[in-house]
Amino acid sequence: MGAAEPSVEALERIDAWWRAANYLSVGQIYLLDNPLLREPLTRDHVKPRLLGHWGTTPGLTFLYAHLSRAIKEREQSTVYVTGPGHGGPGLVASAYLEGTYSETYSDITPDAEGMRRLFKQFSFPGGIPSHVAPETPGSIHEGGELGYALSHAYGAVFDNPDLLVAAVVGDGEAETGPLATSWHSNKFVNPAQDGVVLPILHLNGYKIANPTVLARISHDELHDLMVGYGHKPYFFEGGYDDSESDIDCHRRFAKLLDEVLDEIAAIKARAAEGDLTRPMWPMIVFKTPKGWSGPATIDGKKTTGSWRAHQVPLANARDTKEHLAVLESWLRSYRPEELFTEDGSILPDIAALTPTGTLRMSDNPHANGGLLLKDLRLPDFRDYAVDVPVPGGSVSEAPRVLGTYLTDVVRLNPTNFRIFGPDETASNRLQAVYDVTDKQWNAEYHSPEVDEHMARAGRVMEMLSEHQVQGWLEGYLLTGRHGLVTSYEAFIHIVDSMFNQHAKWLKVTNHIPWRRPIASLNYLLSSHVWRQDHNGFSHQDPGFIDHVVNKKAEIVRVYLPPDANTLLSTYDHCLRSRQYVNVVVAGKQPAPNFLTMDEAVAHCTRGLGIWEWAGTEVAGEQPDVVLAAAGDVPTLEVLAAADILRRELPGLKVRVINVVDLMRLQDAKEHPHGLTDKEFDGLFTTDRPIIFAYHGYPWLIHRLTYRRNGHTNLHARGYKEEGTTTTPFDMVMLNDMDRFHLVIDVIDRVPSLGSAQAGLRQKMMDARLEARAYTREHGEDKPEVRDWVWPDAQDRSASEQVAATLGTGGDNE
Amino acid sequence: MGAAEPSVEALERIDAWWRAANYLSVGQIYLLDNPLLREPLTRDHVKPRLLGHWGTTPGLTFLYAHLSRAIKEREQSTVYVTGPGHGGPGLVASAYLEGTYSETYSDITPDAEGMRRLFKQFSFPGGIPSHVAPETPGSIHEGGELGYALSHAYGAVFDNPDLLVAAVVGDGEAETGPLATSWHSNKFVNPAQDGVVLPILHLNGYKIANPTVLARISHDELHDLMVGYGHKPYFFEGGYDDSESDIDCHRRFAKLLDEVLDEIAAIKARAAEGDLTRPMWPMIVFKTPKGWSGPATIDGKKTTGSWRAHQVPLANARDTKEHLAVLESWLRSYRPEELFTEDGSILPDIAALTPTGTLRMSDNPHANGGLLLKDLRLPDFRDYAVDVPVPGGSVSEAPRVLGTYLTDVVRLNPTNFRIFGPDETASNRLQAVYDVTDKQWNAEYHSPEVDEHMARAGRVMEMLSEHQVQGWLEGYLLTGRHGLVTSYEAFIHIVDSMFNQHAKWLKVTNHIPWRRPIASLNYLLSSHVWRQDHNGFSHQDPGFIDHVVNKKAEIVRVYLPPDANTLLSTYDHCLRSRQYVNVVVAGKQPAPNFLTMDEAVAHCTRGLGIWEWAGTEVAGEQPDVVLAAAGDVPTLEVLAAADILRRELPGLKVRVINVVDLMRLQDAKEHPHGLTDKEFDGLFTTDRPIIFAYHGYPWLIHRLTYRRNGHTNLHARGYKEEGTTTTPFDMVMLNDMDRFHLVIDVIDRVPSLGSAQAGLRQKMMDARLEARAYTREHGEDKPEVRDWVWPDAQDRSASEQVAATLGTGGDNE
Repeated sequence: MGAAEPSVEALERIDAWWRAANYLSVGQIYLLDNPLLREPLTRDHVKPRLLGHWGTTPGLTFLYAHLSRAIKEREQSTVYVTGPGHGGPGLVASAYLEGTYSETYSDITPDAEGMRRLFKQFSFPGGIPSHVAPETPGSIHEGGELGYALSHAYGAVFDNPDLLVAAVVGDGEAETGPLATSWHSNKFVNPAQDGVVLPILHLNGYKIANPTVLARISHDELHDLMVGYGHKPYFFEGGYDDSESDIDCHRRFAKLLDEVLDEIAAIKARAAEGDLTRPMWPMIVFKTPKGWSGPATIDGKKTTGSWRAHQVPLANARDTKEHLAVLESWLRSYRPEELFTEDGSILPDIAALTPTGTLRMSDNPHANGGLLLKDLRLPDFRDYAVDVPVPGGSVSEAPRVLGTYLTDVVRLNPTNFRIFGPDETASNRLQAVYDVTDKQWNAEYHSPEVDEHMARAGRVMEMLSEHQVQGWLEGYLLTGRHGLVTSYEAFIHIVDSMFNQHAKWLKVTNHIPWRRPIASLNYLLSSHVWRQDHNGFSHQDPGFIDHVVNKKAEIVRVYLPPDANTLLSTYDHCLRSRQYVNVVVAGKQPAPNFLTMDEAVAHCTRGLGIWEWAGTEVAGEQPDVVLAAAGDVPTLEVLAAADILRRELPGLKVRVINVVDLMRLQDAKEHPHGLTDKEFDGLFTTDRPIIFAYHGYPWLIHRLTYRRNGHTNLHARGYKEEGTTTTPFDMVMLNDMDRFHLVIDVIDRVPSLGSAQAGLRQKMMDARLEARAYTREHGEDKPEVRDWVWPDAQDRSASEQVAATLGTGGDNE
Repeated sequence: MGAAEPSVEALERIDAWWRAANYLSVGQIYLLDNPLLREPLTRDHVKPRLLGHWGTTPGLTFLYAHLSRAIKEREQSTVYVTGPGHGGPGLVASAYLEGTYSETYSDITPDAEGMRRLFKQFSFPGGIPSHVAPETPGSIHEGGELGYALSHAYGAVFDNPDLLVAAVVGDGEAETGPLATSWHSNKFVNPAQDGVVLPILHLNGYKIANPTVLARISHDELHDLMVGYGHKPYFFEGGYDDSESDIDCHRRFAKLLDEVLDEIAAIKARAAEGDLTRPMWPMIVFKTPKGWSGPATIDGKKTTGSWRAHQVPLANARDTKEHLAVLESWLRSYRPEELFTEDGSILPDIAALTPTGTLRMSDNPHANGGLLLKDLRLPDFRDYAVDVPVPGGSVSEAPRVLGTYLTDVVRLNPTNFRIFGPDETASNRLQAVYDVTDKQWNAEYHSPEVDEHMARAGRVMEMLSEHQVQGWLEGYLLTGRHGLVTSYEAFIHIVDSMFNQHAKWLKVTNHIPWRRPIASLNYLLSSHVWRQDHNGFSHQDPGFIDHVVNKKAEIVRVYLPPDANTLLSTYDHCLRSRQYVNVVVAGKQPAPNFLTMDEAVAHCTRGLGIWEWAGTEVAGEQPDVVLAAAGDVPTLEVLAAADILRRELPGLKVRVINVVDLMRLQDAKEHPHGLTDKEFDGLFTTDRPIIFAYHGYPWLIHRLTYRRNGHTNLHARGYKEEGTTTTPFDMVMLNDMDRFHLVIDVIDRVPSLGSAQAGLRQKMMDARLEARAYTREHGEDKPEVRDWVWPDAQDRSASEQVAATLGTGGDNE
């Protein structure tokens, strides 16, 4: 290694390219016309609404220029992640200078007219967003919501040993929680099998209206913080010393960047020779003025180098001559006449700074992951089926069964599939995967007796931060790979906002033809609201589903498989899908299985259906009542209620419906999985009472079905925010979703019952009281409740399997 | 200063107390009976379901014992915040030893029978939760969801100059994002006016199933990390060296703690003398084995000092003789016979370790903030009213008006009211408060020209972390003070899960008589979905309201004031309230005012109402259609639609309803603010079309009203996840909530119109197309749309006020 120091010509080329990128950035923010300033600037050349962010842009373009020089010399495939996504114009300008933008958007030609269009479209109706957005070539990171730059960057380098991700972290972003912990990602990187993240802390000192914390601690503290995070920091400061020429400034940074890249190369070389211990990876503290190269003062107030440069520094460029003049001299300070040809394209000598083809950061295929995406090699999920001789005739922890399937997914896809989770992969019952892989861990090791299933390379990624693991997975998916994330259901709300941003990214890319589809983001929530036996109320919240279904129907899918075989079928489907967010909720506690694999496949294919064996319908007649369930615990209670009803009210025609695919409930016009009204009516009837036991907040069922014909007869039960540390059956009783209450609901709503069945109603009330009293005395549920199984199962050979395993189950959270 | 080294007797007392606390902790997890082990342990003495967490407990009790010793000596008011809330049994045990528990819960007496009950109730149906919960005396922090220990601790010490908060951070929790950034809280503390947080990093090395990151980096890296965070770390390691006696171990820690507390006292003394610069506050790295004092191995596997000690180490204590024997010897290892009197109370000499009265950490009044809560002194909000000569007759940025009111709230309440926000207090238009206060900032200062409105003491708290500012506010409220937090609407989702935990805390405390009510948590979301002009799609999400309304109706309130005077009235109400979470959404862009202050008060008192002046009803007759709005932008579009309708269809009887208090839409049986059906029917009719323009996702309106008589006629418009960087009117058009579309909705739904008004319908379609085309050409909205005002306003003197200010408005995000 040890690149030669760049010549003065090379440094001048960097500077010219940087000026061009800045000129194009300022032009995008302000100009409607006169793109090359070939005539004096007038107010009509200025946009009526000035929208965008200048402050972070010149730093980002400076880095782009220098990285490009190094990439070209080293032929180093590089993705550029810009935490300060506000610097959108800088990234668009860079892609335009590299030619990628015109290749991607043919009307934005590399000439004066194309430049005019480039300027006009920015933050303009019908144009492009102000941030680094899916529309920006080379980006995998929007940056509008701050905090995830490093997590995305690390996700991108896992299993991409030859990739470098230069990840710019804004010093505003650095104050967010997710970013503050994401520095520790370096403990989870394998220096041989994974690529390299080069974090660049863009210390420009200010946010919207305040200084940043990291810019206002001592140099020593900042140094120590970076060392504490496991990095070797390189400090660069430029743009503050007026006595230094721009060329000298470029020389210093070019030298520093070469030094850093040489050090990275040396680490990679050591790793290739087998040294996989965690190195102190280099990072750069890049201290430059906010709004660098912009007007020093505006209206007598310091602008460059202050928070006043954050957004659009000249708010009245169209309205006052003073601001217009400042804008013109600012633009002319970049000397556009030295940068562009007569027809308005960048001078070839300047363009030569950047590499060609896919080495251009704006054209790196990893940043359009669908290009690289390969289908997973999937085993036949049917091979992992559990035996279900009769409904309820066996017991499983469904995720544990899924784990056996995932074991082979891991085996068959050793370099493009990972499982992410916040310290809960085993707690969530996927531990079978440790038969074939480990948790990747590159911090210290102590002794094998405690460091189980940990290795320098492995397919399981665990850190106690939902932000971190979700961010890693997003980066991994966006660069064309596959994966899933497990979490406790309540705490997946921690990443509500990250989910939003990913869902928005998917929604937008669905309408960008050159963005190729990526693998879906798959959630597995197996520690769910009903079975937080060890934890209680703080761990009970099934509202992530509500949050998810607010996003575009074309993006979101929600599945509630009631048993092991349906979970297998569901997950196979999820792992094959593209461009979705799949939310799968399936409890980890031992629970009865109801469907054989063939039945499960059929049920999942339909998404919902009538379970004839559980009901008491008479062929050709309407049922008296419909009992519906979505979710494993609701399914159990509905079946137990159906069992009571057929014993107590043998003449009652009960239909039992189970819902796996929640979006089937919506109207076909609202969601692609939705049932037509005719289909819905056929299942749920238009005029019979529907008692619907649902896994989550019951009003979601109303929200999904309020236009349905039968909706006025629908009565939903679910979690209504009542809970504590108690037994499973007490939990369903606290929320009135227990079997006895469901029977009461039937009595209260079927007209022919009502007062005629006051006795049965009382019996159910008594059963509730007895169950409660028993629980409070003994600390566990009544055996007849706890060990209840579908009665058919008791008649068959498999019944002993059911046994006492039900309802015990050691937990692990 | 400089406490004398504790005597051997004192150290033995600490050890005995620690053993007692651990004994009581293990007892809670395992025992149903035989609390003092006065007979041999049998399986019937063991709980049938073993639920809880042992691992972190002995460390927490060790610290409790030592802190108590120091508190008693120094008479230092101290709150104990335990990030690892899983250590619930340890805190309950400590409160029991201090007597507080029996004072609070009279059936848990300080004797053998009380101890039996204490043990049984833990994690038992009808008993207490397994975590440190609201039920636990002395706690302000549940700890079930990890990440907020330090934020809560700092919130507690603001404006409590004499308070110490000892905040234990679990090394698992330390991996979360919110915790990782919360260390920087020390840059926001005033060493004279605020109290002191002593962070204690509980480095026990393991999470559920993994080592922790901070336990697996070098000592030097961890040291540097803490220095980088602005702390002076004190390292303690205990429990690993078998050759050290427990007494020697206690001696070392007591010495270290005295040193730390002396240093804190010295810093406070310097601050009292006027030195307010940020010191390097001490913190403690407390490295002790997970499950310290528990069984070294179980079933041949290392348990103490490993992740296997995390939860219940002896899962089969009831089922196998081996485990039962281990449990008994474990319990006896604490030598209960040396700790408790014959009747089962703690020996007086041991009890004497801890202080008395409110110096007991379990009885600190700050941890039951309602005890200390004083009403805010509030100015008359009517005094800040904007003049509204006629509806639409003036223009305001509503939050800016609120800012003038808050200025006096700040002035009148100089020590118990703060405003929190992520760098957005000015962006959200509350900058008037800087006339009377500053942003509190104790990192470095540069020059006054950039460091505006910053001071060592101030009422505004800004850091770019929604987690941090929400956590601070929660801690501030929980200790009996008042405040509000501002945020961008989209990014308040970042704290969805924190909101959950706070709402759950409030819900539970509502039913704990000794917990006194605290001030409400008030949100102000003024950068909302419709006006993200600078940012676009990533900043557009109105779903926080959906998230909030999933929580208990007794806790949550949602307000959408349509203008400045209604915002004033709303916020006055919020600041007076207790035990709620109040979500207020009010846009920051210039917008017309509609109601005089008297009208605003009346409107807010009702929560919703008919705006007769905007409709065309005929007294005594049913309207033909109801146009309803909730939110400022929807209100404007509904009024513009009503204006079109009265011009185009003068015979049509239009009722205009405006909703401020969203929960009024729910049934009175569901929410305390809900309307009765009769009231609802009177307003919305039972049979006329209702066109409802709503600020957020439209289906929420259906979810709130699906049981209403008129619901089948209700058609809701709102944000349906369509947006980009564009103009305000283009945003409402993209989501079909614009005035023209609302008129089309009326035509399509009023039976007498329909095909008869095909011409008007076409005209509206054309108006949409023209508006769109204009926007795309000019980059701004058509003037007649942008500057539209309620026509009455144009006839009056105030009309010039409206002027061109509408729709401009520089932004600042």
